[in-house]
Formats: sequence, structure tokens, C-alpha cells
Amino acid sequence: MSEAALPQIKDIEARLTRAPYHQWLGLEVISVGVGEIELTARWREEWVVNPDKRYTHGGILAALVDLGADWALVSSTGRGVPTVDLRVDYHRPAMPGNLRVVGKVIKFGSQISVAEAQVFDADGKLVASGRGVYSTAGTAPAASAAAAGAPSAGASAAG
Amino acid sequence: MSEAALPQIKDIEARLTRAPYHQWLGLEVISVGVGEIELTARWREEWVVNPDKRYTHGGILAALVDLGADWALVSSTGRGVPTVDLRVDYHRPAMPGNLRVVGKVIKFGSQISVAEAQVFDADGKLVASGRGVYSTAGTAPAASAAAAGAPSAGASAAG
Amino acid sequence: MSEAALPQIKDIEARLTRAPYHQWLGLEVISVGVGEIELTARWREEWVVNPDKRYTHGGILAALVDLGADWALVSSTGRGVPTVDLRVDYHRPAMPGNLRVVGKVIKFGSQISVAEAQVFDADGKLVASGRGVYSTAGTAPAASAAAAGAPSAGASAAG
Amino acid sequence: MSEAALPQIKDIEARLTRAPYHQWLGLEVISVGVGEIELTARWREEWVVNPDKRYTHGGILAALVDLGADWALVSSTGRGVPTVDLRVDYHRPAMPGNLRVVGKVIKFGSQISVAEAQVFDADGKLVASGRGVYSTAGTAPAASAAAAGAPSAGASAAG
Repeated sequence: MSEAALPQIKDIEARLTRAPYHQWLGLEVISVGVGEIELTARWREEWVVNPDKRYTHGGILAALVDLGADWALVSSTGRGVPTVDLRVDYHRPAMPGNLRVVGKVIKFGSQISVAEAQVFDADGKLVASGRGVYSTAGTAPAASAAAAGAPSAGASAAG
Repeated sequence: MSEAALPQIKDIEARLTRAPYHQWLGLEVISVGVGEIELTARWREEWVVNPDKRYTHGGILAALVDLGADWALVSSTGRGVPTVDLRVDYHRPAMPGNLRVVGKVIKFGSQISVAEAQVFDADGKLVASGRGVYSTAGTAPAASAAAAGAPSAGASAAG
Repeated sequence: MSEAALPQIKDIEARLTRAPYHQWLGLEVISVGVGEIELTARWREEWVVNPDKRYTHGGILAALVDLGADWALVSSTGRGVPTVDLRVDYHRPAMPGNLRVVGKVIKFGSQISVAEAQVFDADGKLVASGRGVYSTAGTAPAASAAAAGAPSAGASAAG
Repeated sequence: MSEAALPQIKDIEARLTRAPYHQWLGLEVISVGVGEIELTARWREEWVVNPDKRYTHGGILAALVDLGADWALVSSTGRGVPTVDLRVDYHRPAMPGNLRVVGKVIKFGSQISVAEAQVFDADGKLVASGRGVYSTAGTAPAASAAAAGAPSAGASAAG
């Protein structure tokens, strides 16, 4: 995909933040590439899980991993797509402060795609990371799909 | 653990809802058993991901699976414990309405424990389910731990 | 599905053990139900990961979780189907001895299904458990599918 | 860690292949770096799951992801360590032929570490990838640990 064909950051952000939950998370799109995205989320008091130690709830970090991985697919899908499943590893407590999310496609497929995301705190430390499986059936993979992995059924078998 | 020794619902709910994010989720504890918990969460507009179809964001469901599995351990831990990792399967869209979460311990260990949770919509349909690994080091497993699985290091090896 | 319509154990076993790896694992089918299966695997020296402590490699247990979950779908699929992803929790070391695998459908969908499996050692202790996502597109879900969950696209969305 | 201090390939391979299952998989160590390893596995007929289409069983790929991630930690652990849990995504069928495994540490912690691995076929195509959580308690993280992530308890909390 030529750079000219890449979705514009403003367009992606407008689409992303149609979601009320994404508005609540204070999402901004920093950059979009082929099979990649970078976002920020704006900390808010309601994120806190432990009122003494003040770190952020794992469910907030899970949401950021999910949407970061999902929207890493946007250069091929043009939109958010259904999540089939999500896996998140927690690496260290996320203290109050904005978070940065980097999403990257692992394998783009015509039916099922896999993408990953990392969440960093304000000091640049990795606080969580993970992967999701996404339903990309019915999306129109552009030429860019080849860069992120050739479309295929994408599955092994115990059959 | 005798029934008398089980944590009281009101005490558990008070502890659970000290977390600002848990307040925001509108959590109520319905029942607590040995290695089990049942909760409800109160729907709010900010949960919506798709403003047209109006279903709930996967990150909300992920948070409910996480906290449902975590607090299923409460009969042994007495409190919420750190999540090591989380895995969530999405089964069908969760339309606007309160959600019910049922958490259950799979294996209680002295260092690491595994628990699962299911999330049901207002019609009783399963919308998401999953599992988490929790750090239970330093918690005091009561006799009840035996019911949920004998304490052990709990791991295989590629060594 | 009436009992008469359930696949016969011998037929399922014959189909399952067409796979060279399943032969190597020494699989036998103990019982088959709607959305359920029970299998055994015959221990062999090559399973060992730690030559001193003699416990079984996590990759063997992962294979058993995968195939147990996959073939739990057989009352609807009639055959093994492609695995999209797999997640395994290790609960305690599996010492030398035959293993028993119990698979159960969590949600049958027309495109994507989720199933789980537990692996028990010769003493009946849970050594590993987990879940897989399976591609059930193109299989012919019989009436039994309703028992295991109504067919649907089965996914949430971060869109 | 200086290069001189890195474990020698031959030493790592000797340790790795003490495991009967690793011998059966025909493992060879190609390279070892700080928080990284590259291995090959030698195809054998028993790997086949589908006797018609001849692709490799997902359980073999799961074992390769597990051991690739586990032994990516070897520059810090000096040995294989217990797997807490494992998650594998299947990207395309693995046809007969040797496989290459690349493991990489995501986060080294004093109690719990996270590592990932990719499995490539003979054509260099990604056939599977995934992550594991490993118990690194009691191992002696060398200075190299800093490169792979500062040791810490490594967990979020729903408490």
C-alpha cells in the first residue's frame, strides 16, 4: 500500500471515538501504519482498582490491549472488527498517568486475524501486553494485507 | 470451611467496591461460596462500543471475567489478588442491560491459582467467559482450599 | 439429539486414531455425549521432560487439551476441526502413568466454537486444563447444537 | 551480560536434549542470545494429524511454542523452568518438513516471567506463535535480566 493510500489519522480517530467507551477512555490516535497503530489513553480516577496503592484496574489494560490489537488491523479492515478472544499478560502495576498503546498485526487472514498490543506507562515501561483473535471475514483486505501476512484460513487441526 | 466461616456477602461487597472502577461498574455481590462468587454489574451508556448496534465493549466483559475469577478466590484469599494473566472468549454480543458474573476456582495453589468466570446477559445467555491466573502467594488458604484443589506449586515444566 | 443418533464410540475412535500423532499418544475413546467426550492416553517414555523427576512434557498435555476440546465438538461436527487457538493452564506435574481427558463444549457457533478440556492423572488429580477456539464453518451442526449453545457468529467487538 | 558470559550453544543443547521428549522432537540449538533462542525440530511421520492432507498436529506446534519461549529465558535462568500457562495461535497448516522456532523474552521477573515464540516452516512461513508464563522463582537472574526487563513481581490487580 502506498503511503497515500493509508487511512488518515484524523479519519481513524473519528471512527474509533464514535464508541462511547473509547471516548470514556480518552483515546487519541498518534500514528497509523500498515498493520500498525499507536494510541494514547487519558487516565481518569475511575480507572483505579486499589484506592491505597492507586494502580489501574486490569480490565482497563485488557480493553487497551483489545482495542490496540483490533485497530492495528485498520489499514486492512478500515474499521474495528469483532474480537473472537483476548489474552492479556500483566507485567507491572500501572500507576496513575496516561497510557500509550502500540498495536501490531501478527497474521492477517481472510476469515480470522491475529494481532498483538503493548501498553506502556508514562515512563515508557511495559505494563501489559497481549494478543487477540479477530473476525476479519467480510472486510476488504487491500494490497497491504500481503505485508501483514498472506490471507489464508489460518488454523491448525486436530482432525 | 464451615458455612459459618464463609465471608459475609456485605463484607465482601464492601471490600470489592472500595475500588473506584468497581463502583463505576455498579457491582453487587449476590452470593459467595467456597471457591465461588456471583455478582451483578449495572449497565451504563459508556459501556457501548458500537453506537449503532449498541453492544457492550469487549473490555468491559474482560474486566468482568477478570474480577469474577479473582473474587471467586475470596473464600481462600479474603481479598482481591494480583492478576498474572487473563484470557477471554466472546460468545455473542452483549446488548444493553445489566450483566451477571459467575466466578469459580479451578485450582487453588499456594503461589499461583487459576479461576474462571462466565458473564450472562439479562436473558441468561452466555456472552463471554474466560480464565485468569492469580498470584495467591502470601494469602492464607483456609481449610476451604482443599475443596477447590490442594495447594501446590501448580506448574508443568519444559525443563 | 436422541441417543440413537449419537456417534458410536467405535466410529469416533476409528476416525480419531487415523491421525498418526493420535496413535502415538495411544488414544482410546471412553464415552461420547452431546458436546462431551472422554478419552484416555497411554503413557510412554518419550513423554518425559525431566529425566530426574520424570514428569510429562507440557506439550503432551497441551496436545491432550487441544484434542479433547476439539473432539468434544464431534457430536455436532462429526470430525476433528481446525484449531484457531489454544490456551492451557498447568496445575501440577503429571507423573508417569496413563492420562484421562474430559472435553466439553462451551459454545457451539456456526463459524467459531469454543470448547474446554481437563486432563487427569492416574490418581484422578487435575494436572492441566484449558480451552480452544475451533473453526466449525462448513460443519453441519445437528439438532444437538442447541444443547451446546445456539449457533451464532460468536464474537464481541471493539468497533 | 558480556558475550563471553552467554551460555554456550553446545551446553544449552546438551541440557535441553536431556529431555526424552526433546530428543523425540529432534531439537537442535542454532543460536542463543540475551533473552533469545533459535532452535530447529526434525519432522517425523508421527507428527501428522491428517493422514490425507499430511499437516502437523497442533500439539506438536504447541510444544515448540512452549519450549521455545521457555528456553528463551535460559540466558537468565540457565535451565528450563516450569510453565504456568501457554497460549498458541495457529496461523496456517504446517506441512511435512523441519520447523524453526524463535523464542524471545517479553518480561523477565523474579517470580514470574513472560516469553513468546514463533514457529516457521521450511519455507520461512509463520505457522504458529504464542506466549507462555513461566515460574522463574529461585532462578538466579544475571545482569542480563535487566536487558530483558527489570525483575519485579509482574502483575496487575483486581483487588
